[in-house]
Amino acid sequence: MEINRKALFESFPRVPEEEIKKRLLALQERLKEKEVDLALILQNVDLFYLTGSLQRGFLLVSKEEATFFVQRDYERAQWESPLPLKKVEGLSELKKVPFLEKAKRVGLEFDVLPLGMFLRIKEVFKKEADFVDVSSDILYLRSIKSPYELEQIREAVRITSEVLSLVPELLKPGLTEVELDARLQYEGRRRGNHGWLRMRGFNQEMCPVAVVSGINGGIPSYVDGPIKALGTCPAIGFGTSFKVIQRNEPIIVDYGVCINGYVSDETRSYVIGNLHPKLEKAYEVSLEVIQLMEKEAKPGVPVKNLYEMALEIVRAHDLEGNFMGFGENRVKFIAHGIGLEINEWPIIAERKEILREGMTFALEPKFVFPDLGAIGVELDYVVQKGGISRLGSLPPHLFYL
Amino acid sequence: MEINRKALFESFPRVPEEEIKKRLLALQERLKEKEVDLALILQNVDLFYLTGSLQRGFLLVSKEEATFFVQRDYERAQWESPLPLKKVEGLSELKKVPFLEKAKRVGLEFDVLPLGMFLRIKEVFKKEADFVDVSSDILYLRSIKSPYELEQIREAVRITSEVLSLVPELLKPGLTEVELDARLQYEGRRRGNHGWLRMRGFNQEMCPVAVVSGINGGIPSYVDGPIKALGTCPAIGFGTSFKVIQRNEPIIVDYGVCINGYVSDETRSYVIGNLHPKLEKAYEVSLEVIQLMEKEAKPGVPVKNLYEMALEIVRAHDLEGNFMGFGENRVKFIAHGIGLEINEWPIIAERKEILREGMTFALEPKFVFPDLGAIGVELDYVVQKGGISRLGSLPPHLFYL
Repeated sequence: MEINRKALFESFPRVPEEEIKKRLLALQERLKEKEVDLALILQNVDLFYLTGSLQRGFLLVSKEEATFFVQRDYERAQWESPLPLKKVEGLSELKKVPFLEKAKRVGLEFDVLPLGMFLRIKEVFKKEADFVDVSSDILYLRSIKSPYELEQIREAVRITSEVLSLVPELLKPGLTEVELDARLQYEGRRRGNHGWLRMRGFNQEMCPVAVVSGINGGIPSYVDGPIKALGTCPAIGFGTSFKVIQRNEPIIVDYGVCINGYVSDETRSYVIGNLHPKLEKAYEVSLEVIQLMEKEAKPGVPVKNLYEMALEIVRAHDLEGNFMGFGENRVKFIAHGIGLEINEWPIIAERKEILREGMTFALEPKFVFPDLGAIGVELDYVVQKGGISRLGSLPPHLFYL
Repeated sequence: MEINRKALFESFPRVPEEEIKKRLLALQERLKEKEVDLALILQNVDLFYLTGSLQRGFLLVSKEEATFFVQRDYERAQWESPLPLKKVEGLSELKKVPFLEKAKRVGLEFDVLPLGMFLRIKEVFKKEADFVDVSSDILYLRSIKSPYELEQIREAVRITSEVLSLVPELLKPGLTEVELDARLQYEGRRRGNHGWLRMRGFNQEMCPVAVVSGINGGIPSYVDGPIKALGTCPAIGFGTSFKVIQRNEPIIVDYGVCINGYVSDETRSYVIGNLHPKLEKAYEVSLEVIQLMEKEAKPGVPVKNLYEMALEIVRAHDLEGNFMGFGENRVKFIAHGIGLEINEWPIIAERKEILREGMTFALEPKFVFPDLGAIGVELDYVVQKGGISRLGSLPPHLFYL
C-alpha cells in the first residue's frame, strides 16, 4: 500500500465550511449587540471552534470580516480552515493590521488570556482602546451544538459505552485501580479515542479515566467534581490511585473519550459481591434524580429549577450532606455541558441559564460517604424539542459482579 | 487486607519538608534582590513546587514569611504541605491579609495568570501596588534540581527505558501508529506512570507518547518540537496518527513518564527492514551531536556555545534545512529542561543561559525530511561536576527489526 503525503493530508477529517461560517456569523451578531468593534481570539479551543484549525495564531473578527493570522503552520492551516488567512511571524505583527486603528472596543478572552500577553496586546492598541471580555459570548455560542457537533459527541459516547461495557469482564478483586485505568485507556485509544479531555480555565486539568474504589472515593481533593479521590501522587492529586480493588466495596468508573475535539463523560458503578445498604440506597436516589430530570428537563426550563428539584429528592432521603461530595467539599452543580471542553455550559446549578435546544450535558448525581466510598451514575444528554435524550446505549444499572 | 482511610492517606508520597524550606528560602533571596515585597503565587505547578501540595489556593511569600491560603481541600493540604496554612473561601479573602497593605512591589506569574484574575487581584491592592513578573525567578529556581527531584526524574526515565525496550517486540508492519501508542501508554501506566506531561504556558499541551512513522514525520504542525506530524484529528493536531506502520520507513517513538510530578522525555528510532541512506546518514549525525554534547556540556558553559557547536556539525553535513524540523518550520533549540513541566530551563539555544550543576534536560537532535519522514534520538541528562551524565539505560541505537 502506497501512502503519500497528500493522501495522508486528505484522509484527515475537516470541520465543514458551513459550520465555520455559521459560528462566525453568530459571533458577529453578538459583537454588534455588545457594540464590540473587534474580537481578538487567541485560546486554542476557541480558535479551533471559529476557524476549524488549531494551528498557532490569532483570529480577528470585526462586525463584517474575519481573518485568521497564522504563525505556525501556515500550509496546514490552509487545509484545515476555510477562512481568509494571513501569514505572520507572531503577535507583534498585530500592529500592521490596517483596521486595528478604528477599533475602540476590543473583545478578548479575559478568563484565559495571560497577563503578559495582554500587556503586549495593550501596547499595540496604545491607550485608545477599551478592552471587554467576550469569553461568555463564545461560551454561550459553543453551548448550542449543531448536528455536526452532535455527531462527534455521539461517536465519543458510543466508544465510552463500548469501553464501559468491558468493565465487568476486566474487573477482578486484587487488581489495582491504576491497572484497570491503564487497561480502559488502552481499550478506548485503540477504538479511536483521539486523546485528551480538555478543561477550560487556569489550573484546570482533567484525567480521561477515573477508577475509584472503596475508601478512595471518600478521600478529599481540589478537583471540581463530586468525586475527589486520592490520585497517584500529590502532583496528580485526584481520581485513580494505586489502591487494590476489593470485594464488597463500591467501584466507580468515570470515563471520557474525545472525537474530533468533542468529549463524552459517563460513569457507572460496580461491585464485586455485596454493597453496604447505605450505598445501595444512595444509588437508587441517583436513579430517581435521573428519572426526574428526564421528565422535567426541556428547552426553556431554567437550570436552577432543575437543580432545586434534584436537591428536593435528595433532601427527602436525608442525603444532602453526601450529595455531590461530602460536607463542605460538595460541588454545587449536578450536570455540566460537554463539547470541545469538559466544563462547558449549561451547568445545572443555582444559575441564571435556561436550557436550549442543542445543548449537551453530562448529568452526574453522585454520593460520597467518607468511610464507605462513592457511588452514582453519569449519563450524557442532548436537549431536543420537548425534552432531553440519552446519547449513550449502556443502561444506568448498578452492576453486581 | 484491611485498608482504612488513614492508611491510604499515609501511603501517599510526600515532598520532604526540607525541600520545601530550601525552595522558599531561595525564592525569598531572589525577592530581596529584586526588591519585591510580596509574591502571590497561583499557578498549580508553582504552588506544588513551593508548598508540596496542589490543593487549590494561593501562596503569599514575603521576604520573611510564607503562608499557603487553601480554598480546597484544607484537610488534604494539611498532610501534603509543611507550610503554615490558612483556610479561605477564595481569592476574595486576599483583602483580609494583614501584611498586604505594606506591599508596594508585588510579584505575580505574568506568563500564566489570566487577565480576569489579575483584574480581581489589582482591585484588592487598590492603586498603590506595582506588579512585577516573578515567573522567571521561579523558573530559574526550578531549573536546578535537588537530589530528591533527581531521584523522581531517574525513576521516570527508568520506566521510559523499560517501555521503550518493549518496542522491538510490539512493533509489527500493519499496526497503526495509534495502536502502538495505546499499547505503550498502557505499559507505562501499569508500571506506575503517574499521569500527565505538563507543559507550561498558554495553549501549551503535550501528549505523553508520539508514534510517528514514515511520511507522517514530514507533516507540519504547530507543536513546539522538532517533529510535528499529523495527530489524530485537527483538534489534536500533532504526533501519533491513524497511519498504518510499514516496512522500510523510519518509526520514531517519543515517550514521557511522570513520577511525583517530574517527567522524563526520551526518543528512539526504529525500522522494520531497510532505511533510506539519507535517513541513516542523518541518524549518524544525531549521534555525532550527542557525542559532542557529552564532551562539551558542563557547568559554566553558555548554552549558546553548545547550540552553535551542534549547528556546526549539522552544517558540515549539509543538513541544516532538515535539522529540528523542516524549512521554516524548524525549532531553534536542541534541548529543553525537564522537571515538573516538559518545557523547563535550560533551553539549549541561542540564549543567555549558562549550564549549572543540577540542571536536567532532554537533548533531542532530530531530522525531518518531508517525503521520507523523521529520524533522531532523545536522551535525558543531568548536569554534574565536570560534565553531563545520562539518566537512562537504553542505548541510543537506531533499532533495525
